[in-house]
Amino acid sequence: MAKSKKSPRPKARLPRGFRDVTSEELRRTDEMIARIKSVYDLYGFEPLDTPAFEYTDALGKFLPDQDRPNAGVFSLQDEDDQWMSLRYDLTAPLARHVAENFQTLAKPFRRYAAGPVWRNEKPGPGRFRQFIQFDADTVGSDNIAADAEICMLAADVLEAVGVARGDYRIRVNNRKILDGILTAIGIDPTNPEAAEERLTVLRAMDKLDRLGLDGVRQLLGPGRKDDSGDFTKGANLGDDAIERVVAFLSAGEGDAGLDRLAELVSGVALGETGVAELRALSALTTGAGYDANRVVIDPSIVRGLDYYTGPVFEAELTFEIADDDGRPMRFGSVGGGGRYDDLVARFTGQTVPATGFSIGVSRLAAALEALRKQQTAASEASGPVVVLVMDRDHIVAHQQMATALRAAGIRAEMYVGTSNMRKQMQYADRRGAPCVVIQGESERAAGEIQIKDLIEGRRLSEEITSSEEWRAANPGQFSAPADELVAAVQSVLARYGLHGGDLGRDTGGDA
Amino acid sequence: MAKSKKSPRPKARLPRGFRDVTSEELRRTDEMIARIKSVYDLYGFEPLDTPAFEYTDALGKFLPDQDRPNAGVFSLQDEDDQWMSLRYDLTAPLARHVAENFQTLAKPFRRYAAGPVWRNEKPGPGRFRQFIQFDADTVGSDNIAADAEICMLAADVLEAVGVARGDYRIRVNNRKILDGILTAIGIDPTNPEAAEERLTVLRAMDKLDRLGLDGVRQLLGPGRKDDSGDFTKGANLGDDAIERVVAFLSAGEGDAGLDRLAELVSGVALGETGVAELRALSALTTGAGYDANRVVIDPSIVRGLDYYTGPVFEAELTFEIADDDGRPMRFGSVGGGGRYDDLVARFTGQTVPATGFSIGVSRLAAALEALRKQQTAASEASGPVVVLVMDRDHIVAHQQMATALRAAGIRAEMYVGTSNMRKQMQYADRRGAPCVVIQGESERAAGEIQIKDLIEGRRLSEEITSSEEWRAANPGQFSAPADELVAAVQSVLARYGLHGGDLGRDTGGDA
Repeated sequence: MAKSKKSPRPKARLPRGFRDVTSEELRRTDEMIARIKSVYDLYGFEPLDTPAFEYTDALGKFLPDQDRPNAGVFSLQDEDDQWMSLRYDLTAPLARHVAENFQTLAKPFRRYAAGPVWRNEKPGPGRFRQFIQFDADTVGSDNIAADAEICMLAADVLEAVGVARGDYRIRVNNRKILDGILTAIGIDPTNPEAAEERLTVLRAMDKLDRLGLDGVRQLLGPGRKDDSGDFTKGANLGDDAIERVVAFLSAGEGDAGLDRLAELVSGVALGETGVAELRALSALTTGAGYDANRVVIDPSIVRGLDYYTGPVFEAELTFEIADDDGRPMRFGSVGGGGRYDDLVARFTGQTVPATGFSIGVSRLAAALEALRKQQTAASEASGPVVVLVMDRDHIVAHQQMATALRAAGIRAEMYVGTSNMRKQMQYADRRGAPCVVIQGESERAAGEIQIKDLIEGRRLSEEITSSEEWRAANPGQFSAPADELVAAVQSVLARYGLHGGDLGRDTGGDA
Repeated sequence: MAKSKKSPRPKARLPRGFRDVTSEELRRTDEMIARIKSVYDLYGFEPLDTPAFEYTDALGKFLPDQDRPNAGVFSLQDEDDQWMSLRYDLTAPLARHVAENFQTLAKPFRRYAAGPVWRNEKPGPGRFRQFIQFDADTVGSDNIAADAEICMLAADVLEAVGVARGDYRIRVNNRKILDGILTAIGIDPTNPEAAEERLTVLRAMDKLDRLGLDGVRQLLGPGRKDDSGDFTKGANLGDDAIERVVAFLSAGEGDAGLDRLAELVSGVALGETGVAELRALSALTTGAGYDANRVVIDPSIVRGLDYYTGPVFEAELTFEIADDDGRPMRFGSVGGGGRYDDLVARFTGQTVPATGFSIGVSRLAAALEALRKQQTAASEASGPVVVLVMDRDHIVAHQQMATALRAAGIRAEMYVGTSNMRKQMQYADRRGAPCVVIQGESERAAGEIQIKDLIEGRRLSEEITSSEEWRAANPGQFSAPADELVAAVQSVLARYGLHGGDLGRDTGGDA
């Protein structure tokens, strides 16, 4: 006989670079986002949700070529042939929203937004084409108090999600000071012809972490040969200019650092403005009780320099955790932002000052999870209580037990499959149930229920070797009057410090 | 001189059929979704988040033609030329997830999901191309207890979001009974050649609401001429068959209705199974305390009949509200679902029984908002407390006041713009601030602050006619010692039953 035709069934698979987020991670992320929102709410920020699509021309940097828009975004043509793209960040849609509603918005307009963004880029390990961003921005104010507020917010957010004071820093610099230094050494940051030289200097500065001051000196001067013998061309600055830049990078944190920066940019108006802004910002944060342990001036922050026009911020986690090989590592940056002035101008021509902060939700969640695992062993059982179905003729009574537990706020389910007792126990185990409720014929006759503590059961099962002994001991199992069901289950939960509402939910400590 | 070239600036506008969701609506929707989630959590359902994209072939009903996938979904080609589409519902991605992870999932797999879906359809008033769905499904159980659980869940969800008992009904029918009736009158529901006749009968039944029993009778028979004279061809059933169908539709609710249905399908196995399933479902829901006031058997529910294979559910709001013209109207259906068995089979060939329920989030939110407006006048002021900046040299002190209010859990902001006093007051007004905090030079010298109650101020301003009188009265304004700031603000909030945490958040009543 002829072989049957090839099956037309599609293969069940995720598109490349995308992922499903399942229960445990999703609950943690949602809880974290809820806590971040509550902080922004407290500060009087308002939420805004924009759709996934924007017209491609409104997104700005990705313009349609003859065929289709440039790589980097997901784009398609609408019925009327206009190109639409999925948003690649939350700032471009904010710009569109503000420009579109400029007359009716109460300004300063302070909004937060959380949601997925999409990047049409090559996926890699831990690098996905859809991920969550959480942004907060103040639009329509050039007041330094708006920047100070953003820094305080960032600190409060980290504490709200469970990072202890001392385990993070909000580091602040000001692009105006940097451009002041460049001006002082003869590089005009507004001159397009000096752009390449400026970029070479900035790249050299950005290598401080990796190469140290001497390495940066070489890159600011004639160039540097690395260990492999490769030569990187330098910026060819004179000795005096090099020492100015190095002095900037090594000015040090806080007020003393600011005093040194002030000397370095003395006489350069832009730089002096930058120093004055940081002094004002520092006065505001310090005055509100955010000392250098939380918000600190740090001239070594060289962040998003082509984009920002004033203060820049970076939120850094400073605690150490063990990496996969047991070596201590730091998570480093979990968010950042700064002041930028060209947000709305591309639509309206009118410059609208703005400042904002973006949190890398996945990165922060990963850091918190590492911290949590380090601090406490994950709860042994976090699933719902499962009421087993011993006899389908009495399923109504089983269902009533689940309802009674839920009425007491305990996460509970009656088993709704059709398998036998052994499979039901396996199911309860896989669900992470702390205990199961059993009522067979004999218990029903006696007006009783059996509660089996699965956590205790698992522990004891490691001590018991023979199966006869196991059946005799019935580890972790006890009976109770049927009308004391709720109290009996609560007594098991109490053994492990669980409350009904905790089951399957990671509350992440006290807010 | 030549005119300058046409401006290259893009117009700030939303893509056609999409919308921004702003603060008030977004808070309400988020709060509603959080309450729905808490109910599903209590029942032991687990959340799942799938990405926006699926491969087009995995979505099923939309297959790529030569050029691009059919209308209805947004599709584009990945770099490797595979077609991807944005999900149009949450069921198709669930099917893909279950098929992809079938071996490792604990079954029955009970998941809930909330998120945007996209439809590439012609937009219209109130009809958008991106909207939120909230689904819950039980996969891998043919146990009627799973359907009963879904009905109880739907009832609990409506009460959790603020619909009073008695203001809604979960109506339940069973497709097997309907197909039993069709079998009994000679239409085989499994025969493709009878499909058109079956559809004509179903469409006639579905018009009960609009045309009444006599209209349905005409459509089941030779046909019906409407008031405009247009003729709709009928199903041409015999009188006996017509009366059977009419008897089905008018069997009535609850157990008495079930008895009548049992007579109608007597001797037809499929129909008898359907009646037995509804009896079992009713025993479970009634046994758990969900009487006919909450979950009720209703043979007139004719829902999604081409899709479902067993029990079908519809959640209906029964309270009346006034429509735009003041006439009483009902919101009707806010969600529905049922049992379906072909979820995973299209990937694996293996039939996996499933049952689920989907809530129309926007529709339910609109109904709740109408209810809320009817029951209580919306809060007059729900924005944050605004600390005005009287003197930028003392901005640190102003910032400290905002920080102190937030530390007491009161939603508060210092004005971070740069405008004058009058504009700041306008800003506070537009933000819906219940009060503002003022400390000018004289108050500072006296160690005092001024609190201006904007709600009282607005009320009094309607009674005061001359501007001299206004300035003299300073309505709603009082002074307090600076170190009693928090208590003074709390006293204003207390006047309106507001708490710090309420400001700008619609908690929607007690959970």
